[in-house]
Amino acid sequence: MHDEPLLHRADVCRPGTMSEVAGMNLPAQGLPLGGLEVVECASFVAGPSGCMALAQLGAHVIRVDPIGGGSDHFRWPVTDDGASLYWTALNKHKRSLAVDLRSPEGRELVIALATRPGRERGIFVDNGVGRARLSYETLAARRSDLIHVHIQGHADGRPAVDYTVNAEVGVATVTGPETSAVPVNHVLPAWDLLAGMTAATGLLSALHRRSLTGEGSFMELALADVATAGVANMGWLAEAERRGSERPRHGNHMYGSFGVDFGTVDGRRVMVVALTEGQWMALQKVTGTAEVFRSLETALDADLTLENDRYRLRETIAAIVRPWFEARTLAQVTRELDEARVLWGPYRGMPEVVDVHRAADEPTVLTQVDQPGIGSVVTARSPLRIAGNYSEAGAAPLLGEHTDEVLSDLLGLSQAEIGRLHDHGVVASGGR
Amino acid sequence: MHDEPLLHRADVCRPGTMSEVAGMNLPAQGLPLGGLEVVECASFVAGPSGCMALAQLGAHVIRVDPIGGGSDHFRWPVTDDGASLYWTALNKHKRSLAVDLRSPEGRELVIALATRPGRERGIFVDNGVGRARLSYETLAARRSDLIHVHIQGHADGRPAVDYTVNAEVGVATVTGPETSAVPVNHVLPAWDLLAGMTAATGLLSALHRRSLTGEGSFMELALADVATAGVANMGWLAEAERRGSERPRHGNHMYGSFGVDFGTVDGRRVMVVALTEGQWMALQKVTGTAEVFRSLETALDADLTLENDRYRLRETIAAIVRPWFEARTLAQVTRELDEARVLWGPYRGMPEVVDVHRAADEPTVLTQVDQPGIGSVVTARSPLRIAGNYSEAGAAPLLGEHTDEVLSDLLGLSQAEIGRLHDHGVVASGGR
Repeated sequence: MHDEPLLHRADVCRPGTMSEVAGMNLPAQGLPLGGLEVVECASFVAGPSGCMALAQLGAHVIRVDPIGGGSDHFRWPVTDDGASLYWTALNKHKRSLAVDLRSPEGRELVIALATRPGRERGIFVDNGVGRARLSYETLAARRSDLIHVHIQGHADGRPAVDYTVNAEVGVATVTGPETSAVPVNHVLPAWDLLAGMTAATGLLSALHRRSLTGEGSFMELALADVATAGVANMGWLAEAERRGSERPRHGNHMYGSFGVDFGTVDGRRVMVVALTEGQWMALQKVTGTAEVFRSLETALDADLTLENDRYRLRETIAAIVRPWFEARTLAQVTRELDEARVLWGPYRGMPEVVDVHRAADEPTVLTQVDQPGIGSVVTARSPLRIAGNYSEAGAAPLLGEHTDEVLSDLLGLSQAEIGRLHDHGVVASGGR
Repeated sequence: MHDEPLLHRADVCRPGTMSEVAGMNLPAQGLPLGGLEVVECASFVAGPSGCMALAQLGAHVIRVDPIGGGSDHFRWPVTDDGASLYWTALNKHKRSLAVDLRSPEGRELVIALATRPGRERGIFVDNGVGRARLSYETLAARRSDLIHVHIQGHADGRPAVDYTVNAEVGVATVTGPETSAVPVNHVLPAWDLLAGMTAATGLLSALHRRSLTGEGSFMELALADVATAGVANMGWLAEAERRGSERPRHGNHMYGSFGVDFGTVDGRRVMVVALTEGQWMALQKVTGTAEVFRSLETALDADLTLENDRYRLRETIAAIVRPWFEARTLAQVTRELDEARVLWGPYRGMPEVVDVHRAADEPTVLTQVDQPGIGSVVTARSPLRIAGNYSEAGAAPLLGEHTDEVLSDLLGLSQAEIGRLHDHGVVASGGR
């Protein structure tokens, strides 16, 4: 069936032989990756977020977890009952299979799943280590055109997490208040998220190549390499190479141009940026400081239309405009900056982020989803809008929710065989 | 030519009709996206980094800039001569076309380029605003199956940059020292980089769909939505929704488990993480503190094998193991932690990052590239290794370096027509 030309086939967006009584967590029909099937054996953020992005674009992702859940299954934040809001947020739209990957039978099930025939199948993403890891060689022996993306900590196999690589590539050393005696860590695992989308990009590239050549791919992606490439791609390593010494911290100032935070009279803060000449003109105009800056340019032989001069004189510029902000409430600042078309944004706490989105008249990237095991949860849709619209957000599965369905519908196992696997503890259903 | 089935065509990885005397900046043959052509009208980080990732996977990316360069062309860091290390780092492997997009003739050139026929063409990425913006409607009128990814600040069209959205989605409010009275900005534009890879993923999804259905796509991606979805996907907005108040800052501590920084006797710092039970056991073992923690568990009725108890007692745990680190040099810590298989990493400054990679015996994700206009520059390859290998890094173009080649080879213009466009200031060549 899947060796026929796929152009214009009516069922290309259908989930194959799976039941169409979807449950609300499966992706909607008609999305770009409808029909694609991805098997995910990954934990924490990188692999799961990348595969979730594919699911949000229509792919059918089967996530494989150990029975009882992996090391990430109860990761914070959690509800009062201990259910992980992190896990449900990172695994929307997926099917969940709970398998004992330490047993030969369990491994065989996942190998069979990952190497199912079909042009839209045979795609595997993992971050396995040690005994539980399924190697490319093992899988490719069963399906020679397999697409396999393997995510790891370091390229040499040593483990790493976002927080260790962020330290290693120099970001923590340049982040934070200028007066800080120690590096400042990110709270956001930026490299994990970036690794996830890099894995997704690599996977789709390999799929493109396979559609043209019939050949599979083995791709590896080290979190440490994502981070190293990330800072290199900003030109920062080339700068360090030339400078020979560390860049001094610049606190909340944006590097190389003008951008910094200000406080308002009602205790709020705003981030204001003058990256382009137009934005710089707008900031001067709204704060009534154009003449001040003309005089300053003369006094200091500077040209503030040049962003590097704005950076060099950032503290002076900030001191000149700061009183304007500190004399106004956030509401006043909002009105005047928007009218003047200044580039800016308010600092918010996360409860306010939720409130702002909830109060919006039009759909936003956030919505409420009824999450089994938890209840109503504020949830993100895909940020990619297609033909002007957001796609619907979905729920995450319960652990092992689709074990029997996957074994039956995708692997063609009989009820007796499935029962035996349960009895022997090779697979499990239900749970959290 | 390009309506023939592409499977097994010998030239699928060739750059089409362009000269194969490539110059060292074009992607190597045989990469997954060889043959794909993308037209990029984007500036700063998001669009360019996403398109560069596609170029590093083999795609031929034609970057369109205004004559003399856009607002990002001289962005820091720069060399002593003012050449932007940022621009060259973000635009490796691309061809550069310099065009006056405010002129109807200039716009027509880019429209023709973006809508060139062929299954591997008609792919356009932009972040245009205002008069210079080429709309989907305009382009799709010329090629109905166009794939267009449009990157913007906010979904409603208002401008935004990484530093403003990072404030708006609550990350700056939770980042930084616990004692900080103000939010702490990221130096790394994480959302820009994530938006770039999200755009690349969307583009390839649309390409997949077009290969099956013959239909194009218009996708929009707002930086603010990438950031909002990013924090939602960590479960943090759901947590805020339930808690109703802001999460207190937790400084350099990893949220929900144990991970924090320590100093060594020789003034270095290390980030140490005990995310899993095995990592926690290893940390206790190497620091000789297992008995201390058993007694502590009894005294406090805690179970430190549970990561939430490790988080709750993080300051106590840190105080107990800190002396072990502070009595050792980085070299000693390195040896002992690696041998004990503790999950950790040293804090580095960026000059040291360069040195470490330069000293490596095997290829790493970094390499030196001879960058025209600058010289030898430390540069990142793609972090995606294929069949066990890194791909080669390439150079960025000089501004307008490929203007004449693109007009001639891709648009079929005559030398006379090209000369006229130069004379009328519609296009330009050379420059930096």
